[in-house]
Amino acid sequence: MKDLRQTLRKPESTEKPSTSAVSLNETTQVGGNQLALIAGPCAVESLDQVMEVAIHAKQLNIPCLRGGAFKPRTSPYSFQGMGLEGLEHLDQVRKTTGMAVISEVMSVEQMNMAQPYLDCFQIGARNMQNFELLKELGKQKKPVILKRGLSSTVEEFLYSAEYIMAEGNPNVILCERGIRSFDNMTRNVLDLGAVALLKELTHLPVLVDPSHATGKRSLVIPAARAGVAIGADGILVEAHPIPEKSVSDAAQALSLDDLTQLMKELEPVANAIGKSFFENQAASKAATTVTELETVSPRRLSAV
Amino acid sequence: MKDLRQTLRKPESTEKPSTSAVSLNETTQVGGNQLALIAGPCAVESLDQVMEVAIHAKQLNIPCLRGGAFKPRTSPYSFQGMGLEGLEHLDQVRKTTGMAVISEVMSVEQMNMAQPYLDCFQIGARNMQNFELLKELGKQKKPVILKRGLSSTVEEFLYSAEYIMAEGNPNVILCERGIRSFDNMTRNVLDLGAVALLKELTHLPVLVDPSHATGKRSLVIPAARAGVAIGADGILVEAHPIPEKSVSDAAQALSLDDLTQLMKELEPVANAIGKSFFENQAASKAATTVTELETVSPRRLSAV
Amino acid sequence: MKDLRQTLRKPESTEKPSTSAVSLNETTQVGGNQLALIAGPCAVESLDQVMEVAIHAKQLNIPCLRGGAFKPRTSPYSFQGMGLEGLEHLDQVRKTTGMAVISEVMSVEQMNMAQPYLDCFQIGARNMQNFELLKELGKQKKPVILKRGLSSTVEEFLYSAEYIMAEGNPNVILCERGIRSFDNMTRNVLDLGAVALLKELTHLPVLVDPSHATGKRSLVIPAARAGVAIGADGILVEAHPIPEKSVSDAAQALSLDDLTQLMKELEPVANAIGKSFFENQAASKAATTVTELETVSPRRLSAV
Amino acid sequence: MKDLRQTLRKPESTEKPSTSAVSLNETTQVGGNQLALIAGPCAVESLDQVMEVAIHAKQLNIPCLRGGAFKPRTSPYSFQGMGLEGLEHLDQVRKTTGMAVISEVMSVEQMNMAQPYLDCFQIGARNMQNFELLKELGKQKKPVILKRGLSSTVEEFLYSAEYIMAEGNPNVILCERGIRSFDNMTRNVLDLGAVALLKELTHLPVLVDPSHATGKRSLVIPAARAGVAIGADGILVEAHPIPEKSVSDAAQALSLDDLTQLMKELEPVANAIGKSFFENQAASKAATTVTELETVSPRRLSAV
Repeated sequence: MKDLRQTLRKPESTEKPSTSAVSLNETTQVGGNQLALIAGPCAVESLDQVMEVAIHAKQLNIPCLRGGAFKPRTSPYSFQGMGLEGLEHLDQVRKTTGMAVISEVMSVEQMNMAQPYLDCFQIGARNMQNFELLKELGKQKKPVILKRGLSSTVEEFLYSAEYIMAEGNPNVILCERGIRSFDNMTRNVLDLGAVALLKELTHLPVLVDPSHATGKRSLVIPAARAGVAIGADGILVEAHPIPEKSVSDAAQALSLDDLTQLMKELEPVANAIGKSFFENQAASKAATTVTELETVSPRRLSAV
Repeated sequence: MKDLRQTLRKPESTEKPSTSAVSLNETTQVGGNQLALIAGPCAVESLDQVMEVAIHAKQLNIPCLRGGAFKPRTSPYSFQGMGLEGLEHLDQVRKTTGMAVISEVMSVEQMNMAQPYLDCFQIGARNMQNFELLKELGKQKKPVILKRGLSSTVEEFLYSAEYIMAEGNPNVILCERGIRSFDNMTRNVLDLGAVALLKELTHLPVLVDPSHATGKRSLVIPAARAGVAIGADGILVEAHPIPEKSVSDAAQALSLDDLTQLMKELEPVANAIGKSFFENQAASKAATTVTELETVSPRRLSAV
Repeated sequence: MKDLRQTLRKPESTEKPSTSAVSLNETTQVGGNQLALIAGPCAVESLDQVMEVAIHAKQLNIPCLRGGAFKPRTSPYSFQGMGLEGLEHLDQVRKTTGMAVISEVMSVEQMNMAQPYLDCFQIGARNMQNFELLKELGKQKKPVILKRGLSSTVEEFLYSAEYIMAEGNPNVILCERGIRSFDNMTRNVLDLGAVALLKELTHLPVLVDPSHATGKRSLVIPAARAGVAIGADGILVEAHPIPEKSVSDAAQALSLDDLTQLMKELEPVANAIGKSFFENQAASKAATTVTELETVSPRRLSAV
Repeated sequence: MKDLRQTLRKPESTEKPSTSAVSLNETTQVGGNQLALIAGPCAVESLDQVMEVAIHAKQLNIPCLRGGAFKPRTSPYSFQGMGLEGLEHLDQVRKTTGMAVISEVMSVEQMNMAQPYLDCFQIGARNMQNFELLKELGKQKKPVILKRGLSSTVEEFLYSAEYIMAEGNPNVILCERGIRSFDNMTRNVLDLGAVALLKELTHLPVLVDPSHATGKRSLVIPAARAGVAIGADGILVEAHPIPEKSVSDAAQALSLDDLTQLMKELEPVANAIGKSFFENQAASKAATTVTELETVSPRRLSAV
């Protein structure tokens, strides 16, 4: 792997080397010495939906919201995402809560359209080797969460990161989201051995996505605990106000109560390995009280 | 698989149903009742190189030339293809020999650039689920050879074809090129069972690529024989004037003599299952004699 | 692979080297220059059942009958085979028709019990690395059909053959029966690339089992054609008088009419690559006429 | 999975149900509410070797020693284990330290030979579907650690446990040890999602083997932490006094210092999820001081 000039750790690194910190905005980062938590719905469905998740996440000190505005779907007849309207909702979350917002793009055109609305691009498993898109992501500066392909080797994964970095953008965050295997009792196979290996090989931050990896709600929290314990730099998780009504990936989305439980269970595991979770202080200050925040989310208020 | 409206065979089809014929140009087609043979180098390296393969292929009645102008490479530092110059070389082959020419595109920009130079687009395994590209391929009319992803199911493969067809382009040709598996003694695992299954499920033509599937020169001809025997509608094979000097995939490229041997071995197998190879009569007439053709390929002439 | 002393081809072999011939009985062999056909039910269910298949197979010049007396089943509560009674039925087939009979054994105890009744032992995929059993098979002389494990590499496969040969029994026949992969639309993935590779590496005969490889009746004949075309030394196929009533693997068993069709389709493919099917002349003489044979199969007679 | 009568949790179980406790001897158990730690060399190489590991492990309150007396090796020419002599060494460890001792058996003959020397049988991945052996293990009462096959589904894994239990032996312990996949940068893929799923489905204890799963020393401790964090009932790990001199699996064996580090890192993770490690009080009393124990291990003493 001689040509992985930018992704590999330098040989002169100390035994337990530091992880590069990637800033998503002025007050939020992934990597460094702290754990990052990113939560949100598979797809943006409405302003209410993303705002409700954001408010809940913010109360849990989760600094980043994810939500798909463009959805890669196996069938052309499935819901393909809200597009621009979805991006506008994410931007609204950002402005209201101070959270960093993240969404997937699948083409250069989408990347350009989404640029003003997002703090970070996500590249999905199916596009990990969409080399032309990777090159364009390298020519701009917004950070990129790069998900491992369904059957990509660790070496190929690092080379895809190298594609982005070789063009001048050092802000790459890797994400293991499960690989395809023979047993369909879980959606994918969460390859935490690859996470441990990546932590050895690269200085880039490595996230774990336990939602896509398992595809089953009851397994998400245990898998997230394992991700933290093996040394990942953060967790990317799907959460929905009413999981069973999610337009996509309903089986794997956490409820907001599950999200609370997740944080409750992850903290002691993080502490057990000498880590803590990143808290976006600026985001905490963006709105003084929960009540203030909730004014923007009518459905939730009426539900109280 | 209810939503595979355009790719699945219609229920009213007869027991042994016909395969759709996809025209590459006015005189060349893939599918229908005949076998198609497509050969050429992994990457276009020079006009001489592609012309030499084309002349040899034409003598063997092979109607289509393939050659990569844009190359998807694992590493950003590997040769990425000749780009526009490569396309011009392919166009030159087309004009000189009358053969249909095929090349891979990996983005909408490349698709638009390549449009005037090619008879057919190839979509590689890594872009089988590059849905935005598939949609754009559906909005134009040039035929598309869609290769199966490294770990794509047959169902996902058909849905990707459906993406193209749903946008209005019915000219889709499927290609099995080996799936990723656990044994690295062959490059991939040629999944001929999937070919047999595809022939049952879809009316689209199905090609077999024994070069990428095996990754080893000595296995290419046996694998091609098996592809014909199981019922594929054609073979897509890599060939190079000097295989060991190929800039990419050298281990799997056939020499021109191997290509002759391939045709010699495939013909009786085709006949054994009641098929014959498509011959592009127009291409045969494009240049009267081999000598005429060879005047465009100086290196080869000087080598004689 | 330096230690594969007995399984690898010798370097001094000629370019297209001969395949070792393994004798099943005095008049039947697998390997050499001819193709072997082995057919029969997944499980021995009754004397009538195996005799009916045997009579039909014999009329098609198929020299070997297979049938499971001991069945490896995922669940302990599934039918585990007729055991000794099943072996006696196979022996009866052998005596009546002169065909060679083959059955799977899963332990040394079963091997010893089956010894007098069989011409050849079959070792199933799940026992390919049951090393203690392989050693015992090496200490006796009956030939062994060794099936490739569900996720065994070609190298591991050859080492398992070496286990048998290292103990003194050179009569090993390899069988590719599909490997486990990610797509459950076929039961397994028929790895014909491995067959082509094995033909290069080893002098041992290599069979293809298209029944387990595809798991679907309609794909069995195409897959068998491909197996012959790629250069396998024979085909091992499941057939049942009433496939839908088969106690195991009903979805993949050929009917007797299918078996006739199989032979009809395989012959021209075999000829296309310069091969022919082995015919057990002695077996042909064991009973003068079909009528004679049918006297032992009452159900079939009454059905006529 | 209706027929998994004995392995599945009963529907009337409470939401977070208890795990069955399997006793290895009068004072040691796996399962229940505590974590079990099992450590030892891949292969028994000498009395000194196993005793040195045992003494070190005992000081760490590790209650069980593993060591292979019979070794399943890919090649027949590789070291096949010390056999009876190895069993005697394990027995000596048991008598001296009071630890429970565990070793793999691959046949009924080995099982019978090993019976007097061991507290628990281990069944390796290659024999997970050696059904005849499983049945015999079910007819005796010693506990069985059943390792998941290289490419076995969770359902097949449970059915293999059911084979043992259906014959009358309820003392089954499951062990995930990595599945075979496409990337050879780790030896196998540690499927912790399957562990989380197993904890949902079955009442049987589930161990994680991070040594075989990763195949790389530096990844073993992180993987063990993840195993504990996801909810496994214990860790089975390879350790050797001089790892680089191990006759088998040298790359993945922990040193004794690594073993100390492992325990140091696992304890806080265990506590973080509300668990603690089982300590064999009786074993602790079997010898009063480390000095006493060390008198049986001459090499180590001389090395001091």
